Amino acid sequence: MANVKPISRGAAQTENFLQTGPGTAAGDYLRRFWQPIYHSADLVAGRAVPLKIMGENFTLYRGESGRLCLTDPRCPHRGTQLSSGWVEGDDLRCFYHGWKFAPDGHCNEQPAEDSSYCDRIKLNAYPTREYLGLIFAYLGKGTAPRFPTYPEFENFDGLVEIDSYLRECNYFQNLENALDMSHVAFVHRDNMVSYSGIGRGAQLRAEESDWGVTYTFTRNDGQLRIQQFGMPNIFYMTALPTDPEVGWQESLFWWVPIDDRAHMQFSLHRVSVAGAAAREVEARHQKRRTAIDVPHQRVAEDVLRGKIALRDVDKSRVDLVRLQDDIAQLGQGRVADRDAERPGRGDTGVIAIRRLWSRELAALAESRGLKDWIRDGSIVPKAWGLTGTRSAADGNAAPHTALTDIRPQIEIALQLEALHGNQLEH
Amino acid sequence: MANVKPISRGAAQTENFLQTGPGTAAGDYLRRFWQPIYHSADLVAGRAVPLKIMGENFTLYRGESGRLCLTDPRCPHRGTQLSSGWVEGDDLRCFYHGWKFAPDGHCNEQPAEDSSYCDRIKLNAYPTREYLGLIFAYLGKGTAPRFPTYPEFENFDGLVEIDSYLRECNYFQNLENALDMSHVAFVHRDNMVSYSGIGRGAQLRAEESDWGVTYTFTRNDGQLRIQQFGMPNIFYMTALPTDPEVGWQESLFWWVPIDDRAHMQFSLHRVSVAGAAAREVEARHQKRRTAIDVPHQRVAEDVLRGKIALRDVDKSRVDLVRLQDDIAQLGQGRVADRDAERPGRGDTGVIAIRRLWSRELAALAESRGLKDWIRDGSIVPKAWGLTGTRSAADGNAAPHTALTDIRPQIEIALQLEALHGNQLEH
Amino acid sequence: MANVKPISRGAAQTENFLQTGPGTAAGDYLRRFWQPIYHSADLVAGRAVPLKIMGENFTLYRGESGRLCLTDPRCPHRGTQLSSGWVEGDDLRCFYHGWKFAPDGHCNEQPAEDSSYCDRIKLNAYPTREYLGLIFAYLGKGTAPRFPTYPEFENFDGLVEIDSYLRECNYFQNLENALDMSHVAFVHRDNMVSYSGIGRGAQLRAEESDWGVTYTFTRNDGQLRIQQFGMPNIFYMTALPTDPEVGWQESLFWWVPIDDRAHMQFSLHRVSVAGAAAREVEARHQKRRTAIDVPHQRVAEDVLRGKIALRDVDKSRVDLVRLQDDIAQLGQGRVADRDAERPGRGDTGVIAIRRLWSRELAALAESRGLKDWIRDGSIVPKAWGLTGTRSAADGNAAPHTALTDIRPQIEIALQLEALHGNQLEH
Repeated sequence: MANVKPISRGAAQTENFLQTGPGTAAGDYLRRFWQPIYHSADLVAGRAVPLKIMGENFTLYRGESGRLCLTDPRCPHRGTQLSSGWVEGDDLRCFYHGWKFAPDGHCNEQPAEDSSYCDRIKLNAYPTREYLGLIFAYLGKGTAPRFPTYPEFENFDGLVEIDSYLRECNYFQNLENALDMSHVAFVHRDNMVSYSGIGRGAQLRAEESDWGVTYTFTRNDGQLRIQQFGMPNIFYMTALPTDPEVGWQESLFWWVPIDDRAHMQFSLHRVSVAGAAAREVEARHQKRRTAIDVPHQRVAEDVLRGKIALRDVDKSRVDLVRLQDDIAQLGQGRVADRDAERPGRGDTGVIAIRRLWSRELAALAESRGLKDWIRDGSIVPKAWGLTGTRSAADGNAAPHTALTDIRPQIEIALQLEALHGNQLEH
Repeated sequence: MANVKPISRGAAQTENFLQTGPGTAAGDYLRRFWQPIYHSADLVAGRAVPLKIMGENFTLYRGESGRLCLTDPRCPHRGTQLSSGWVEGDDLRCFYHGWKFAPDGHCNEQPAEDSSYCDRIKLNAYPTREYLGLIFAYLGKGTAPRFPTYPEFENFDGLVEIDSYLRECNYFQNLENALDMSHVAFVHRDNMVSYSGIGRGAQLRAEESDWGVTYTFTRNDGQLRIQQFGMPNIFYMTALPTDPEVGWQESLFWWVPIDDRAHMQFSLHRVSVAGAAAREVEARHQKRRTAIDVPHQRVAEDVLRGKIALRDVDKSRVDLVRLQDDIAQLGQGRVADRDAERPGRGDTGVIAIRRLWSRELAALAESRGLKDWIRDGSIVPKAWGLTGTRSAADGNAAPHTALTDIRPQIEIALQLEALHGNQLEH
Repeated sequence: MANVKPISRGAAQTENFLQTGPGTAAGDYLRRFWQPIYHSADLVAGRAVPLKIMGENFTLYRGESGRLCLTDPRCPHRGTQLSSGWVEGDDLRCFYHGWKFAPDGHCNEQPAEDSSYCDRIKLNAYPTREYLGLIFAYLGKGTAPRFPTYPEFENFDGLVEIDSYLRECNYFQNLENALDMSHVAFVHRDNMVSYSGIGRGAQLRAEESDWGVTYTFTRNDGQLRIQQFGMPNIFYMTALPTDPEVGWQESLFWWVPIDDRAHMQFSLHRVSVAGAAAREVEARHQKRRTAIDVPHQRVAEDVLRGKIALRDVDKSRVDLVRLQDDIAQLGQGRVADRDAERPGRGDTGVIAIRRLWSRELAALAESRGLKDWIRDGSIVPKAWGLTGTRSAADGNAAPHTALTDIRPQIEIALQLEALHGNQLEH
């Protein structure tokens, strides 16, 4: 972990990391990085859907060959929403007058017009990539940067569980919550599993890394738990799951704005479990997907609007952690007001993220060089109880990695509704 | 068809035909013409309802004698909504303190006041007329112009089918869609009946007529289809229905704004079918009225919001054409943004309407003379396959014309909700 | 009734009594008086709820000892909504990081911080008092004034019925409606019980009292009905109920803004009925609480939006009076536009209230002395048919007074939803 610098406490100078629409500072910055935007499983060949990411509308479709295409939301002819059109091969034909577009955005057919008119019409098109069950896109200008991979999640004996949820507040609240060990003893009081006791400010340290922030919690007995925040909106941690078959598991999180009042968390979970045990875990997790029929978002809203008390909610809910975080984060309002807050030493991690963001946004505004965030194999989460190295444990000649979607079914419907946006109100 | 002038292609200079509230240019212009506002069948004697047309609130009631009255929305005393009051004879009494108003708007009773105060109180009242099952009103200033009639629809052997629907977008999108032959092969791909093939721009012609625009499509074999647009918001066309008993039928359409984000289409359909065949057609159409229980507006919204694909919708829906047009027109957004569009030769008709509107609104703004649009018997729609003349076919000594409401029941509930507006949010 | 001055007719100079949020003139004025804000029965020990009164958010909780506490809505640390926290003893602990606050607002625990930081953190806390089943609060600055009591409602043989409803319009519309005898013959046409005939303007008189306005209606036979309005938002009247066992009953009303578009009416009803008759009345009234399952607010909205006619509503509804007043008051719009109104002699009471309010708000703006409104035992409502004095009738050595909640169940759910506000949209 080279190049670490201590980050001192202190409130962020600005809050311009909250708005992410086109043309905003934080929006420009986030668009410089590949972002997960959708689940591979949610888009079959031949289907087009509207998509809203960072307050911007798009058309996402999968050609008949399976190829993914991401383009402008509307036909340049008369402005009709392209997602209602027909996928023909890997092209997309507009529903209104049949103009047809290639995956690179070029118009190649205008049935009612002279053919020469076509050449002057082109949609914006964006690079996409499917990786570990998620669809990533590069929404920025110019050539896309190198696509960052996570080799730890690619070849090992075990499961990669794919998950996500919608949270109806500004993405930065969730991002701050990641480097906030002192909330766990309260927000997750009813279901702490990874450790007991309170994450006191004096035990917390946040240091800049090559990738973002290394966040360390030192237990009274000197043992460490280390989590990694990756700029601008990634989190890499390890936690002890409740499954008896599974030891510590590693998780990757991305927080991606839909707009400034709602965002998605996409996540991948590396579960080191093989053979019959793996099948058992998978079967159990699949079964849980239909266990709830009221989404945690609606329960949290009922709690925050005083309709029910959290103590009356069934604590065996599969999504209890999310429900609890919903309450804490949406409890700050859809967009938290940071002017009135009184941060303490417990907020060391929060302050660290804000400072990095502020520095980079300032550099962007002044056209100074931005830091090139890179994660190498040394930047990984660690925790007491996690013995041995992953490479030793997983150094199988022919490892078997199974991808499995574990989202609750009710979550899928809710998140697609949000991700699809509402271009009627453009 | 005297006085026709060619209309060249070119985008409209302004978009001020979109806003129709009181005091707007397009609103003032539309208010110079009689407009259909409600169905006769929806208002029984003794009932008062709130009404919203062109962003303006009214009270519509039918006196106990059957007389229709259209007045201001609120009592001048304390501002209570008059539609909650009592119809007494042909007068309307306010619910709050019992002030009573005559059909011409004069206050004739104030139970708690001295009688002299009455004389100083008067509601605005507007001329109305019932014609072929629809209620028309003149909402402009001064004396109402001559009421335009459609003799073709009055005395013939056959059915006049009365229909309407709510579309939740700006009225001008629908109006433009009328003179747009090149959308039919795509939007209505699954149900084309009147012709096959694509309406190419080079085959289309739009010429100014005494009434508005004559829109001609010339088939490759030289055959013509002619449709008539009547200023400012009327359409007269002929189409081949699916009923085996019926030949080409003629249709009249009006597009009337409820506000700038929703409008009504009122329509009359002249179906030349008599005797037992007429009864059969009517019975079949009546049966269809309860065939759907999810309105096309909600299905279209689901398609546009990516929840379902149109290909998965039952194509035998009685309102399939409307559903398809909903998608194309609402796909432009509730109020289409015309700044970004790239019109082609296929948009000849659209451009023609915009140019006439722009010219008339400019004349209105500069207090120059407005064209007096008049339809005589020569301005009728025509089509290949339509042989003979209507007068010969219908020249019966005692023709029998039956009026019949064919709106799906679910449509009625939806459109009344929109037409009644919401004066709570005034 | 000393110090009465005649109030002449004339419209209010300003409408600044409509806005009651923090920092508004009317809001400042209303906050100088104790206001009922919640029902005692709706808050059990150990429960915290969000609360919105006059456009301002609060946390209301009842400590485990039964003590009521009213504080700021959000934690000063990171702004999370405090109502989601834990009641511990009579303290409240924040859900996010466990900061704990005493009933007086002082922070007494910050688990992740050094102890010295606590001393610098304090919530605003407001005086509360429970009285006759209602929770009152003083939301103004400085020391709370003397708590006004109503001895007539405290010790007598009979029932005190506790009631309330939500009305989704500005509170001032309801307040004006109190001193408006001429609406009764129309709005309540179907259920007049206290008198027949119309309250004509010439029969009405409104005089300033030590408490507010004394409103007198003189019948043609010279008999009087006197009602008392108490500044700034209280009403004290007597009415003849429909129960055969009960004579005239006295009622106290408070109209308290939730925000500028909705308010609560809290009320107490003094029912002079004892012994077996009291038990019978109470049983009958309790039974009525589940008699309706569509709230009057929704029925009124359906009437105002033209979906149904009032004549088609079941007139035996237990909340018919409220439904009728909903229609009349919401019929003015959520916030009535007083600029266009044409008041008459029938509006004498309305004008009287406006003039007092305008005078006091002007004095407040100019930092002049405000009148100290005081109700003594002489300021009581009276009516023909009400013979004898209350003291004689109720002068029992050991009177038995029973408090009973008579709100329809459906009303409770609706009003709590409104009272709890929505801090997500802060």
